[in-house]
Amino acid sequence: MADKITSRSEDYSQWYIDLVRSAKLADYADVRGCMDIRPNGYAIWEKMQAALDRMFKETGHVNAYFPLFIPESFIAKEAEHIEGFAPECAVVTHGGGEELAEKLYIRPTSETIIWSSYKKWIQSYRDLPILINQWANVVRWEMRTRLFLRTTEFLWQEGHTAHANPEESQEEVLRMINVYKTFAEEYMAMPVIMGKKTDNEKFAGAVDTWCIEAMMQDSKALQAGTSHNLGQNFAKAFDCQFQTKDGVLDYVWATSWGVSTRLIGALIMAHSDDRGLVLPPKLATRQVVIIPILRGDKAAVIERANALAQELNKNGIPSFVDSSEQNSPGWKFAEYELQGIPIRIELGPRDIEKGICIAARRDTLEKTELALDETLPDQISEILNTIQESMFERALQFRTEHTFEVQSYEEFKVAVEKGFVIAHWDGTAETEAKIKAETKATIRVLPEEADYIAQYRIDEPGTCIYSGKPAARKVVFAKAY
Amino acid sequence: MADKITSRSEDYSQWYIDLVRSAKLADYADVRGCMDIRPNGYAIWEKMQAALDRMFKETGHVNAYFPLFIPESFIAKEAEHIEGFAPECAVVTHGGGEELAEKLYIRPTSETIIWSSYKKWIQSYRDLPILINQWANVVRWEMRTRLFLRTTEFLWQEGHTAHANPEESQEEVLRMINVYKTFAEEYMAMPVIMGKKTDNEKFAGAVDTWCIEAMMQDSKALQAGTSHNLGQNFAKAFDCQFQTKDGVLDYVWATSWGVSTRLIGALIMAHSDDRGLVLPPKLATRQVVIIPILRGDKAAVIERANALAQELNKNGIPSFVDSSEQNSPGWKFAEYELQGIPIRIELGPRDIEKGICIAARRDTLEKTELALDETLPDQISEILNTIQESMFERALQFRTEHTFEVQSYEEFKVAVEKGFVIAHWDGTAETEAKIKAETKATIRVLPEEADYIAQYRIDEPGTCIYSGKPAARKVVFAKAY
Repeated sequence: MADKITSRSEDYSQWYIDLVRSAKLADYADVRGCMDIRPNGYAIWEKMQAALDRMFKETGHVNAYFPLFIPESFIAKEAEHIEGFAPECAVVTHGGGEELAEKLYIRPTSETIIWSSYKKWIQSYRDLPILINQWANVVRWEMRTRLFLRTTEFLWQEGHTAHANPEESQEEVLRMINVYKTFAEEYMAMPVIMGKKTDNEKFAGAVDTWCIEAMMQDSKALQAGTSHNLGQNFAKAFDCQFQTKDGVLDYVWATSWGVSTRLIGALIMAHSDDRGLVLPPKLATRQVVIIPILRGDKAAVIERANALAQELNKNGIPSFVDSSEQNSPGWKFAEYELQGIPIRIELGPRDIEKGICIAARRDTLEKTELALDETLPDQISEILNTIQESMFERALQFRTEHTFEVQSYEEFKVAVEKGFVIAHWDGTAETEAKIKAETKATIRVLPEEADYIAQYRIDEPGTCIYSGKPAARKVVFAKAY
Repeated sequence: MADKITSRSEDYSQWYIDLVRSAKLADYADVRGCMDIRPNGYAIWEKMQAALDRMFKETGHVNAYFPLFIPESFIAKEAEHIEGFAPECAVVTHGGGEELAEKLYIRPTSETIIWSSYKKWIQSYRDLPILINQWANVVRWEMRTRLFLRTTEFLWQEGHTAHANPEESQEEVLRMINVYKTFAEEYMAMPVIMGKKTDNEKFAGAVDTWCIEAMMQDSKALQAGTSHNLGQNFAKAFDCQFQTKDGVLDYVWATSWGVSTRLIGALIMAHSDDRGLVLPPKLATRQVVIIPILRGDKAAVIERANALAQELNKNGIPSFVDSSEQNSPGWKFAEYELQGIPIRIELGPRDIEKGICIAARRDTLEKTELALDETLPDQISEILNTIQESMFERALQFRTEHTFEVQSYEEFKVAVEKGFVIAHWDGTAETEAKIKAETKATIRVLPEEADYIAQYRIDEPGTCIYSGKPAARKVVFAKAY
C-alpha cells in the first residue's frame, strides 16, 4: 500500500517522486542515473506505444532497428552534432576482453548510424522516400536525474526519413509534429502549443526544430515531442547523394522526430493529485475497478461484482474486481486512487437490492448513482468519455489561467514565476541568453498554430521587452523541465 | 529487385546470406558484428512479438524495463555467471566525458541487474510470485557473426520470475518452454523437440536449462528458445530472502526464459527456398498480393483488383495490389516470391470475363483456379490455413527423414553428417566432450516430450555408443548453429 505522498503544495518535486515510487511506476535502479520502469509504469508506455505506432503506420511509416553502437568517427561527421552530443555519451572501450581499435558510443540518438546505412540504400529518387521509425533505448549521461523526466537511459521512438526534395521533408516534419500534438491532446488529455524552437534551442545538426510544449501543474513547461528538419546536413556528412528525376545528383533531404518515456512524467505532472496517479481512460490498461462491499451474503455480492466485470469487459471496458477480504474497502479505495484507475464502482448488498451501484470518478472524486442494469456499460462508457474530455479541459483552463501577456521586463520577471509568458522578443540570441541568465526562463516555442496565434495575437509586431528593439512577433517564455 | 540468390544445394550458407540481403530483411551495419534489421525483417519480429506477448500475458506475466548497464560487481556475484558471460561483454569505461569509478557491462542478459531490484521488492511471500517479462536489446561480443543467428547486438525478450517454492518455479519453467513450443509449431510452423540441456550446455548460473530444438534445411540443429530453472542461485548471490507463510526466512526461487531475433533466422532456414523467403501466413504482415495482368481495359482490371483487395482486407486477410506499369508481371512474381507473400493472385481481363482468378501458393508454387465471387475470402482463408499446416507437416517430415537411430560410434559418425542422431549416452561430461571434439556434434536435448520419447524409445536403457558403459536413456545429438 501507499507510502505517504507529500502534497503538491508542500513540495511539488517531492510529491512527484513520492507518487512515482508509491504507485510503483518506476524507481531508481542500482546503476547511476538509470531507472527500473516497473510494470505499472511500463503498462502506460505500452498504451502510448500502441497508439503512436498505429498513428505512425497510418501515416505510411514502417519500423526497423539499427545498432546501439556508434563508431566515434560517425558522430564526428556532423560538426554541430558532435559538439552537442559527444560530451553526454557513454563510451564502450572494451569488447570481448580486448581494447577496441575505435571507441563505440552508445547511441544518444541515431542520425549518424542510420545515415551511414541510408547512404547504401539510396541511389535514385526511386528509393525515396524512406519513412522509418525505430523503438529503442538511448543513453545520455545526465548529472541530475529525475524518474521518467531525465535519466541516463530512457526509451523512445525515433523516426528517420529521407526525401527527394525540401518540400516533402518539410511536409513530413509538420505531419509528425501534428501527430504528436494529436496524441498529446487526444490520448494524454494534455494541451500543447505547437511551433518552432529558436536556433539556440534546436537539435544539434538540425535546420529547424518543431516542438510541442505542455504546462505542468507547477506551471512550468515541458517539451513533449520534437520533429526536426535536418535539411541536407546529415546527407552531406555521410555523402548520401541520389539521382533526381532529372538525372542530376543531389543530396538527400532528411527529418527526424521523437518522443520518449519522458511523456509518462509529463502525464503524471499534468494530471495527478495528492492521492496519486490520475490517468486519462485512453491510457489506462484497467479502466474500472469494482469493489464489493462485503456485508450480508458476501458470496452473492462477489458473484454480482464478477458478473458486472465480465459484462464490462465484454463491452470493451477493461475491468476487474478486488474481492479480497484481507483489506478493507477504505484501503482499496485509497490503493486504486493511488494507481489511477479512472472509475471505481462500489457495490454492496443494499445497492444490489435497490438495483443500483455507485461510480466514483478518479479525476474529480465525484460519485454518481448508476442503474445496475443492461445500460450500465453505456453509462460507464459515457463517464469514461467525460473523464477524458474534462481532464483535457481542466488542463487547458489551468494553462490559460497561467498564461500572461506582458509589455515590460519588470512585468515579465514577476509573471515568469507564475507560468507561461507571452512577450515580444527581438529575435537575437543575445537577448535570449541574457533573459535566461537573469530569470532562468527560456523561449519555449515560437507558436505556429493559427488558433493560438489568434488568441494571443502572436504575430503582432511590437517592442522587445528586454532590448526595446523592434520585434516582429511574440514568443512563449517559461521555466522548463 | 532481387540480386541473384545462390542455390541451397550449391552453398547453403551463402544462400542464407543472399536471401536475407536480397529480401531486405537485414544487412550488416557499419559497426563490427552488428546488423540493421530492415523493415521487411522487423515486420516479422513485430508479428512474433505480438503473438508471444499475448501468450505471456495470458499466462499472467506483465512487462517492465530494467537498465542496459550492469555494474561489474553485480555480474561478479554469481560465480558461474561471470565465468560464462564476462568474456563476451562490451564494457563502458567512460561516461559524460569522465572515466567511471566502476566499469559498466552492457547487459548480455539481465539476471543480475534484475535480482538487485527484486531484492528490494520482495520481503514476504505476499510479494510473490513476480512474473515479469522484458523486451530489450542485449550485447554479446561475437567473433564470427551471421545475420539474425549470431550478432553482437540482438533483440529478445527475457522473462524473470520469482517464486516462494521450488514446485512453483519448476512449473513456471515448464509452462514457458511449452509456450515457446506452441509458438514455434503453431506460428512458425517449425516442429521442435522439447527437453533438457546437459549440464555442459546449460545456462551459466542455472540449475537446469530446458530448451526447444529445431532442424534447419541443412539438417543442422538450432536452439530456438530456453527456459532456465535458476533454483536459489541468484537469490543467494543477491541475498534476496523472504518471509514464508510459516514465518521463517528462505531464499527466493527463480526462473528466466527467452527467445530472440534468432528466431527470424530459424524461420528462414526452416522454410525458405531458392526463390527467396517462404513465410507461414500467421507471421506474414501481408498475406496476399494481387497482380493485375494489364491487357485490354487496364483501368477495369485494376479496379477489379482493388475491389478484391478491399474485400479481402475487410475479411481480415491483409492484401495489396501491385498495379505499377513499370514492372512486368514476371518481375512482380519473382519479387513477391522473394518477399515470401504467402499467396499471389493473378487477375487478367479474360479471368474476369470467366469469373475466375488464379491463386499461387508461395510454399509449393502450386496454382489453383478460384471462383471470383463472394466465396473468395473463404477460399483464400482456407488456402492460408492449408499453407500454415502443410509448412509444418513438410518440416516435420524432413526432420523425421533426417533423424537416425544408431547403435555404434561408427554409425554415429556417418549419421551425424546427415541430421539428428538418437543414441545412448553414458551421462558423463567426458564422453560428451570427446564426441564433440571428434565430430563437432553436441548433445542438443534430453527429450522430455511423451510423444517423442515414445516414438524413438528414448527412455530405453542401453549401452553408450562411445564408451560402451551403461546408458539410462537416449539423447539427441547434432551439429548445431
